[in-house]
Amino acid sequence: MEKNIDNSSLIEIKPIGIIKTPYKRKAPYQPVQEEEEFYLEIFPEYMDGLKELETFRYIYVIFYMDRAKGPKLIVEPPWAGGIKVGLFASRSPNRPNPIGISVVKVKKIAKNRVYISSMDALDGTPLIDIKPYIKHLDSKDDANLGWVENIEDKEHLILHLKGIPHDY
Amino acid sequence: MEKNIDNSSLIEIKPIGIIKTPYKRKAPYQPVQEEEEFYLEIFPEYMDGLKELETFRYIYVIFYMDRAKGPKLIVEPPWAGGIKVGLFASRSPNRPNPIGISVVKVKKIAKNRVYISSMDALDGTPLIDIKPYIKHLDSKDDANLGWVENIEDKEHLILHLKGIPHDY
Repeated sequence: MEKNIDNSSLIEIKPIGIIKTPYKRKAPYQPVQEEEEFYLEIFPEYMDGLKELETFRYIYVIFYMDRAKGPKLIVEPPWAGGIKVGLFASRSPNRPNPIGISVVKVKKIAKNRVYISSMDALDGTPLIDIKPYIKHLDSKDDANLGWVENIEDKEHLILHLKGIPHDY
Repeated sequence: MEKNIDNSSLIEIKPIGIIKTPYKRKAPYQPVQEEEEFYLEIFPEYMDGLKELETFRYIYVIFYMDRAKGPKLIVEPPWAGGIKVGLFASRSPNRPNPIGISVVKVKKIAKNRVYISSMDALDGTPLIDIKPYIKHLDSKDDANLGWVENIEDKEHLILHLKGIPHDY
């Protein structure tokens, strides 16, 4: 049955594990170290749910950004020349529900640990879901960059978005 | 500060709007009607957060599947020849946290309504976030299909995954 959903409804979710990253204090807008270990540590009771996950090259990691500040509806993204955009047109962590999504590569799975490529989350971040990234559903050749297209130093902003090391 | 996260931690999230679809009772594994209206109805207090969202061709819709059954760690996906896979290697709604993610096209935005291409969610589903789908971050040319690759009738399963109408 459809329930009556309004802005006072509350939904409870729970961590299924934690995300281990080398980032202790701040979001890694800067260089990522691929050699460092990034992994998802799944609580043992969910381990069976990982069966066949290794067959995917990419997965979605869905996490709760527990150290985000409160929501700000209009944001001025860093390295974007002062443009102001709506929160939902940005990947800012300061959202009504600070849920993050990253597409990462699966490197290997050992027991309840899923080793992944680097991602932008602080060490200890609660993991709330993992989903397979399925080429035919999730990969959009004709996607664009939205407002980022019009930024003067677009190439630079893209490096930041992707977390690619660069020294300017 | 990092908090102590364990499997008894609870996280509260709240709807930012609701999703309107033509699907009243069951998940649309079957044909989707593009003519029908699919839209996100954002609660008015979040409307400012939509600024510039229209500049993106695709967005992520993140929603809470409030009518999902409880989690099942091993699932047998429909149309997959009886293969059993872990929950996290599937897109089943019956997850520890029944959070769904769809990549959809933005058609237009009018006030607090975001008109979108079709997606697999029941009418009235709580919307919990919207994020821009950014080509350089989210579109992976080299993504694969994981265990789906080995299904005998892979082409058929892909039609179901994509929600493409077909009559066999």
